[in-house]
Amino acid sequence: MAALEPGLTVEVGVPASSANLGPGFDAVGLALGLLDGYAVEVLPQAGRLRVQLEGEGSQALPTDARHLVVARLREALEACGIGWLDGYGLRVTCRNGIPMSAGLGSSAAAIVGGLGLGFALARGGDLTEADLGLVNTHAGIAEGHPDNSSASTYGGLTVSWMPTSKVVRTARPVLHRDVVPVVLLPSGTRLDTATARAVLGPQVPRSDAVRQAGRSALLVHALTSEPGLLLDATQDWLHQEQRRPVYPGTMEAVDRLRTQGHAAVVSGAGPTVLCLTTVELVDIVVAEVGSWGDGWQVLAPGVPTVGLHVLGGDGARG
Amino acid sequence: MAALEPGLTVEVGVPASSANLGPGFDAVGLALGLLDGYAVEVLPQAGRLRVQLEGEGSQALPTDARHLVVARLREALEACGIGWLDGYGLRVTCRNGIPMSAGLGSSAAAIVGGLGLGFALARGGDLTEADLGLVNTHAGIAEGHPDNSSASTYGGLTVSWMPTSKVVRTARPVLHRDVVPVVLLPSGTRLDTATARAVLGPQVPRSDAVRQAGRSALLVHALTSEPGLLLDATQDWLHQEQRRPVYPGTMEAVDRLRTQGHAAVVSGAGPTVLCLTTVELVDIVVAEVGSWGDGWQVLAPGVPTVGLHVLGGDGARG
Repeated sequence: MAALEPGLTVEVGVPASSANLGPGFDAVGLALGLLDGYAVEVLPQAGRLRVQLEGEGSQALPTDARHLVVARLREALEACGIGWLDGYGLRVTCRNGIPMSAGLGSSAAAIVGGLGLGFALARGGDLTEADLGLVNTHAGIAEGHPDNSSASTYGGLTVSWMPTSKVVRTARPVLHRDVVPVVLLPSGTRLDTATARAVLGPQVPRSDAVRQAGRSALLVHALTSEPGLLLDATQDWLHQEQRRPVYPGTMEAVDRLRTQGHAAVVSGAGPTVLCLTTVELVDIVVAEVGSWGDGWQVLAPGVPTVGLHVLGGDGARG
Repeated sequence: MAALEPGLTVEVGVPASSANLGPGFDAVGLALGLLDGYAVEVLPQAGRLRVQLEGEGSQALPTDARHLVVARLREALEACGIGWLDGYGLRVTCRNGIPMSAGLGSSAAAIVGGLGLGFALARGGDLTEADLGLVNTHAGIAEGHPDNSSASTYGGLTVSWMPTSKVVRTARPVLHRDVVPVVLLPSGTRLDTATARAVLGPQVPRSDAVRQAGRSALLVHALTSEPGLLLDATQDWLHQEQRRPVYPGTMEAVDRLRTQGHAAVVSGAGPTVLCLTTVELVDIVVAEVGSWGDGWQVLAPGVPTVGLHVLGGDGARG
């Protein structure tokens, strides 16, 4: 087993993501310009682990090897043949900028970031395109659905699928430059993905499955070539309506925006709302949500074209 | 009611189509370069109707107002306020080049062609872009699913949907220039769409619906931007396997080609097989099917970028 050299540090940035975008359930992801930053430093003390948390939700998270970033950092190191804390220690620092349990892929970002730290440490501080492929695969398997993790790994727009439970593949269609995502973050309300998934039954009407597949095809066309079709292209039959009882305020906001012609959807498992608008209409959407009162924080975070990335070049040796 | 001027003639061409392309059930269509030609001439004899049929299946079809082309021609005329055979007669000639009951959209082509003849007659011999929209809507409603009819109306690649039972919308993604459709027409076997639809149950597993929507999104990306992904992008869970008992030879051919890495699917409701290959691989596909013996006629008809069109310009007056 190779050990790590004390003083080696790596810092990575990982964007948030919105998954599903209506009909593209568990497949389509869009990176959003809200970032988590994770750093690791190799310590000389064998077996030592220090975890420091800053920002969103830092009080609620474990500061040991159970932390999601740390667990995936360990997974990546071991995949590279480096024993966990075997002859070295680690100081991990997490600066969370992505709201948690909001439907913005904070868990996927933590998994992607932790894997990224681990693979970068193993490579001496950098990540290759092949490493991103490994991160994408490990993260998709860890999540069970690669929609968020692929967007966090690669940035931009992603369509991902798992031919088997151990293989993750991702296509990266080019988002039309006029598309602007507006994020509506509800004040205070948060929701676990597991809670949101539990309300979905095992069978669906064939007619709904057929319509969903058709709109999903249209979704990629609208996002890449014809944003004017986004309202029709974001209609869903498989998850949003079924979850209405767990996020009534979210669905009310989606309904209000869609009634006015704006392509609003539930972001991931909610309760955040994503509105896919265009440069011409973004001010109208922001003003509309502003008129509803204090319940929503409105963000226009943009879509980063880069996902997981190493900050500060090839990794500084201390 | 306006009448029609004796001697006015219109002739239209309509391409065949392949629908579904795997996961894009009832939504995605691809025009194929196999053409039906339909002509109509206005006769001076009020109430007279003559129907002449040539080519594919001409013995089996009615030669009166029940013929699909004639029925839709009537529908279009009446939609334009022209009473049926009211003060004039019609001679309709149909030259069928599209194999019937094969899964190549011959019924949709007949509907589109009949509507096209009618709207063109009403306009004095030509079809505008707005007329194509009317044809697309009438034909999609008549069929109940607009996948074939939209491809026959517009040519190229189409993604269609019906927001209500009376509205048809169609997007026209640009097919990647490397994509080559190969059509495998089984010798002798034919299948009614109604028979093929009857074997599909009313409920499907949610997991299948989710996978289908994901691959459908990927299908549009692969067809427009990344043909190398077509094998994964054409996988289906909602209809092909369920219909295996009604077209075992078709599924055997699909399986054989897919096992070798070629993106084979059932064309529409079968029994024709469509293989979406590329300019680099088309010879390999054709040779492979040729090695199976005499059961299949292999065609590489190309994808016309124009659908329904008036032949010979603005309509000749006799």
